Amino acid sequence: MNTTTPTTTPTMTGSDVISSERVEGTAVYNDAGDKLGSIDDLMIDKRSGQVRYAVLEFGGFLGIGTDRYPLPWDMLKYDVTREGYVVPLDKARLSDAPRYSNVDIPAYTPEYSRRVNDYYGVPM
Amino acid sequence: MNTTTPTTTPTMTGSDVISSERVEGTAVYNDAGDKLGSIDDLMIDKRSGQVRYAVLEFGGFLGIGTDRYPLPWDMLKYDVTREGYVVPLDKARLSDAPRYSNVDIPAYTPEYSRRVNDYYGVPM
Repeated sequence: MNTTTPTTTPTMTGSDVISSERVEGTAVYNDAGDKLGSIDDLMIDKRSGQVRYAVLEFGGFLGIGTDRYPLPWDMLKYDVTREGYVVPLDKARLSDAPRYSNVDIPAYTPEYSRRVNDYYGVPM
Repeated sequence: MNTTTPTTTPTMTGSDVISSERVEGTAVYNDAGDKLGSIDDLMIDKRSGQVRYAVLEFGGFLGIGTDRYPLPWDMLKYDVTREGYVVPLDKARLSDAPRYSNVDIPAYTPEYSRRVNDYYGVPM
């Protein structure tokens, strides 16, 4: 029964969908190959079920003091080789980006969402 | 600083989006008010980011031996009063529904997805 698929991860071969539990924790790299962090959470439109933001966890030490950076979903491309997402961002671009701590999650109001999308130049 | 919002749950007031971490674990009821189970996972279209299925966890005892039932996302309506999702299903309807165990997650191939949607009469 053992295949090349690790038993701890869901089998997704040939599938068009991916589990939210699997997305959470996936590494995020930039075009240069630097690891920026990992996906902590997804923000989903309540009505349509469309994922609007993948929340990048970055910084801190052993999970303490990390910040969360909402990234518009359309910015992320999955890289099969790296087994992670790639975003067209260098680390410096994150220095002024909208962010929050794990204990102070903002309401994603239309105004907040617009601020995030405007920062990255991604249409709403 | 204490408000009526519990400190352990993200503040979502006035927000159009919801966190995947918050959806996971949310109770699911039917129209009659019976609790069917809770959301274990979300299955997301890799390319579009659209949530296709909410996976209902049901049965078993203390998480052992439970089954997972993928439900087309469009079937779920959020009920603010119950603080849970409501689906138009009686428990008997689940007895023959597509399901799987936590350790044997199927590939969500187009054929599998069609089988799920056909079972509930929801267009793909």
